[in-house]
Amino acid sequence: MSSDEFVVTPWHVEGDIDYDKLIKQFGTQKISNEILIKLQKITGEDHFMLRRGVFFSHRDLNLILDNHEKGKEFFLYTGRGPSGHTHIGHLVPWVFAKWLQDKFNVNMYFQLTDDEKFFSKQELSLKQTSNFALENALDFMALGFDPKKTKIIIDTKNIKTLYPIAAEVAKKINFSNTKAVFGFTNETNIGMIFYTSLQSAPCFIEDKPVLIPLGVDQDPHFRITRDIAQKINRVKPALIHNIMIPSLLGPGGKMSASDEKSTIYTTDSPEQVKKKINKYAFSGGQPDIDEHRKIGGNPDIDVSYQYLRIFFEPDDDKLKKIYEDYKSGKMLTGELKGILIEKINKFLSVHQEKREQVRKNLDDYMMKD
Amino acid sequence: MSSDEFVVTPWHVEGDIDYDKLIKQFGTQKISNEILIKLQKITGEDHFMLRRGVFFSHRDLNLILDNHEKGKEFFLYTGRGPSGHTHIGHLVPWVFAKWLQDKFNVNMYFQLTDDEKFFSKQELSLKQTSNFALENALDFMALGFDPKKTKIIIDTKNIKTLYPIAAEVAKKINFSNTKAVFGFTNETNIGMIFYTSLQSAPCFIEDKPVLIPLGVDQDPHFRITRDIAQKINRVKPALIHNIMIPSLLGPGGKMSASDEKSTIYTTDSPEQVKKKINKYAFSGGQPDIDEHRKIGGNPDIDVSYQYLRIFFEPDDDKLKKIYEDYKSGKMLTGELKGILIEKINKFLSVHQEKREQVRKNLDDYMMKD
Repeated sequence: MSSDEFVVTPWHVEGDIDYDKLIKQFGTQKISNEILIKLQKITGEDHFMLRRGVFFSHRDLNLILDNHEKGKEFFLYTGRGPSGHTHIGHLVPWVFAKWLQDKFNVNMYFQLTDDEKFFSKQELSLKQTSNFALENALDFMALGFDPKKTKIIIDTKNIKTLYPIAAEVAKKINFSNTKAVFGFTNETNIGMIFYTSLQSAPCFIEDKPVLIPLGVDQDPHFRITRDIAQKINRVKPALIHNIMIPSLLGPGGKMSASDEKSTIYTTDSPEQVKKKINKYAFSGGQPDIDEHRKIGGNPDIDVSYQYLRIFFEPDDDKLKKIYEDYKSGKMLTGELKGILIEKINKFLSVHQEKREQVRKNLDDYMMKD
Repeated sequence: MSSDEFVVTPWHVEGDIDYDKLIKQFGTQKISNEILIKLQKITGEDHFMLRRGVFFSHRDLNLILDNHEKGKEFFLYTGRGPSGHTHIGHLVPWVFAKWLQDKFNVNMYFQLTDDEKFFSKQELSLKQTSNFALENALDFMALGFDPKKTKIIIDTKNIKTLYPIAAEVAKKINFSNTKAVFGFTNETNIGMIFYTSLQSAPCFIEDKPVLIPLGVDQDPHFRITRDIAQKINRVKPALIHNIMIPSLLGPGGKMSASDEKSTIYTTDSPEQVKKKINKYAFSGGQPDIDEHRKIGGNPDIDVSYQYLRIFFEPDDDKLKKIYEDYKSGKMLTGELKGILIEKINKFLSVHQEKREQVRKNLDDYMMKD
């Protein structure tokens, strides 16, 4: 793979992603100014993740908004592959999804694909992925989703609801389709081959159109769903895509839940956060202080700055000042990291408390078949 | 396909099957005299379907019997793809399975694969196959299985129990395996590709070895199950295979549930049975009576005789007399058909009554997840 190449699939993200190229490659739409203005008009807010291009691409979001203006309802759906504990990168689409639920007052389904992670990770047992699913569910509900309008789906637990829908989908997808979209081979296990139809199932769980906020790496699943939707007399799912959240170790891949070093978990202590950021967060600064003061840092490649931009500093003015101070050399890498550490720990202290409150009522949020 | 070729897969049976060749092709074992004697010793009976080679082949039946003699338990499992109403050919392995349950006093699981028939039949909806599943279940239970020791599984209804087991199986099977065993292509739908793991699941539903009485066309599924059993730390399923039941229209294929003409359903009236046998049952007789009296008929290709041999005349002496009388020309085709019609209608009058009794309690026999 040469330096200007990249790979984005649901199970593998590699290289420096050129998001404009990706939009062309995947055949999605860039989120236009027209859509941004319409969203602002409807919600009365200008969400920083939209403004900053953290959500950058979509499929049929315009139709969802046009229909909304005509009084037609939709519902939300997103998910997570429970291969480990939740890390802060996972929270990005969830926080945005929570905002969408607040603003549109709609139902939300959150799918935890314990089967998928069992099929795709040689070393994981179904028991492990099912346990991670429960832990991940705590993080999702801790963000404040409306308990009356939110249902958590765990594939192996809710398979009775999912399977008949997945079967309708699966009958319309052949092995060639999955080869073309996911790069499957003759050696791919048959659980993985079937799995995409289960990720499609929640799209059709209500008789309304769905909008899915999600990482762009998950788009291929719904490209298939959109291809077959008409064949089963259903509406194509609409999508809104976020960029891949960089690993602590630097850009060029999404944050991986399986490499402990490069990951800040929602369950980390303040000391762990401090240690991980200080030790591992890829820096755009200069090798020594004198040089940094003279040349300045590069916030565009600095992971700490990117985390502030993507998630932890919604205030544009404050973010701009950090950007300029770091770029000019006025702000040192240690100082920038200090700002991020404080932000993360402040967030996590509240989050961890809510997470434990959710634990008591978790069963109430689970979908009942 | 030349005249001495044949095809036997779970979804396609064609040609004149040479069962000795099939045993070699599939790599199964012929049921030996040693096994027949052991079965007779244990059960105190010499079942006519064993004696006459209706059940002709097995895998590891000897292990099941050896272990039984050492006091180790097993359970039974068989099934049906509900693509239509039950026909009399389906009852062959079920009647034998009932005998096994009686003699060994063991649990029985009966799987109705509504998903499979939905995936494999373009024209059938999941609702249709699920409805046929309920109808087929009536026929099964009407045969008198012990209600306390028998559970009916419908794939879409009991998927919560089946799916986690199927997932363990599916992780060990790749697309190449299914190509080699079932002849799948890149155009096969992903429901079909995954499905075999769901047919494997009941093999591991109890922590004991399983014995499966079944049509030999279903063997390929369990060849895969046996290949992967050790990889998931489970015992290989044991099988006992029956021959394919000929269609009314003649040998060279199994009775098809979708061709109404060539099929006697368990719900047929005495008049329908009479009409179908008289009109369609392939005859080994001569074109006219004079010639028949002179040359005699051929019971070996006569469908009416074969139905008596396979299912409806357990008495060897009576069967032998019919064979000889028909072969000598003493018995005419109309008379032979008359014997069969009477036997079938006598059986169905009792069966249909039991079937309606079962309907009231059907829910009690369904597996509860």
